Amino acid sequence: MTREIRHLVVIGTGLIGGSVALALRRAGCVGRITGVGRSAENLQLAVDLGVIDDFSHDVAQAVADADMVLVSVPVSASADVFRAMAQNLPADAVITDAGSSKQSVMAAAAEYLPNPSRFVPAHPIAGTEESGAGAAFAELFDRHWCILTPDEATDADALARVRSLWEATGSRVMQMDAAAHDEHLAAVSHLPHVAAFALVNAVRKSGGDDPFRFAAGGFRDFTRIASSSPEMWRDIAMCNREALIAKLDALITELGVLRAAVDGGDADCLLTEFAAARAARDAWLLKYGDEL
Amino acid sequence: MTREIRHLVVIGTGLIGGSVALALRRAGCVGRITGVGRSAENLQLAVDLGVIDDFSHDVAQAVADADMVLVSVPVSASADVFRAMAQNLPADAVITDAGSSKQSVMAAAAEYLPNPSRFVPAHPIAGTEESGAGAAFAELFDRHWCILTPDEATDADALARVRSLWEATGSRVMQMDAAAHDEHLAAVSHLPHVAAFALVNAVRKSGGDDPFRFAAGGFRDFTRIASSSPEMWRDIAMCNREALIAKLDALITELGVLRAAVDGGDADCLLTEFAAARAARDAWLLKYGDEL
Repeated sequence: MTREIRHLVVIGTGLIGGSVALALRRAGCVGRITGVGRSAENLQLAVDLGVIDDFSHDVAQAVADADMVLVSVPVSASADVFRAMAQNLPADAVITDAGSSKQSVMAAAAEYLPNPSRFVPAHPIAGTEESGAGAAFAELFDRHWCILTPDEATDADALARVRSLWEATGSRVMQMDAAAHDEHLAAVSHLPHVAAFALVNAVRKSGGDDPFRFAAGGFRDFTRIASSSPEMWRDIAMCNREALIAKLDALITELGVLRAAVDGGDADCLLTEFAAARAARDAWLLKYGDEL
Repeated sequence: MTREIRHLVVIGTGLIGGSVALALRRAGCVGRITGVGRSAENLQLAVDLGVIDDFSHDVAQAVADADMVLVSVPVSASADVFRAMAQNLPADAVITDAGSSKQSVMAAAAEYLPNPSRFVPAHPIAGTEESGAGAAFAELFDRHWCILTPDEATDADALARVRSLWEATGSRVMQMDAAAHDEHLAAVSHLPHVAAFALVNAVRKSGGDDPFRFAAGGFRDFTRIASSSPEMWRDIAMCNREALIAKLDALITELGVLRAAVDGGDADCLLTEFAAARAARDAWLLKYGDEL
């Protein structure tokens, strides 16, 4: 059975923070929910929609009575949030987050939180192209993975409570080493986004007064993620630099292999590489496609 | 008004060739249609579906009575088809094709056709993931671009007849220099396909026993074209080598710029590059999205 949360404080009441609030209300396992953010308009909307009960613009003040704090801000803002809450955080409060990279957030927690063992890092792998409390919905996390990345110092009680929270949202919860998480997500998420931005820029600079004129459906799908938020992806790239660089190098190496095959007229190499890629993608879709 | 085609021979009666046949029947501008191919099963299906009237496995025999020949085979097979038809082609017959790269097909026509001025290269920018005559449908080309790439030697009458043919399919027809076509398509079509294959391979080789485990919707869309036919894309890459290499180099350069920014912690550079890419893609979709 899901544990009770008496007073949840959601710092960053956007799509993710708002959807966690709605999902926990749906599960009936949360008492009061306070939203924290900069935009009074967004926070008032969140109250009007029943996402939160009340709101504050002051992190320190808001967390003073919390037993659970969810930090769902851009990963680059995590350190400032931890620093702001440090003085007022009740000793028994538990903190979790929703950031797309984990090692940088854990480093910030270790530096600024009075008791980092009460922080349980989390990454719910869910989202839409929308943002803001108005886009939040209770079903966002249903059947999606949420990866927790505790370390050996993480408090067992805090971990159990955070696991219960994410399970109550509908997520399927698993644990993973933070470095493994960051490497894995660099490959399947951060790298494709950066590559999509890079490809659009390569075409944009390729000359002609209308370089995208004959782009068709394949191009549209390939570059869909290049319409994602530049600010958010700058932050993610900056917070997962080491893993992302390794994946960028791997992609540049693969492109170099294919370039050499095209240049050398090595049709067999192209066929082998293309067929291996298709087989790997098709196998992935067959195995996990129903989870997407 | 569309000109009349007395006897159309479609060499390669798959999705494209079959759809051209159906679209011309819909337009009421074609008499007899003969299909040519290797698979008796596919050709009989084409007859049963009313795509073609009759069929042959022999290119030379089939073209002897044609006034219009459509070559819709993989681009790498064009030379063999031209060579096979050379002896039997009526002097007044006109030839067009549907290949994704144009310079290599024109070189093959120049080498093997008795009168290359009667060949008018074409690239209808349309298709689906399906293949074979059973997948053909009359509406495939409606409102899509078809690019013709005649050169200064192209016969004016042949050009007019081929333009009429493609217009009758529902295509919007335009003319372009073959080298410009190949460069343009290398950027917006061939490069994304090769990059998608490369990215899947980079992730596949990135270690772990299940490297795609947490790939989500963004990855699925980005890599959709990596489930395309390896044989077809090998052929296209091999037939447009020079332009594709230039675009691969441009992409590798862009990835290098972003890698250097991540490595050097240059958040401003990442934001600028990401924002420029998003703006360019969004502007393209706004302008041409309704054509896709």
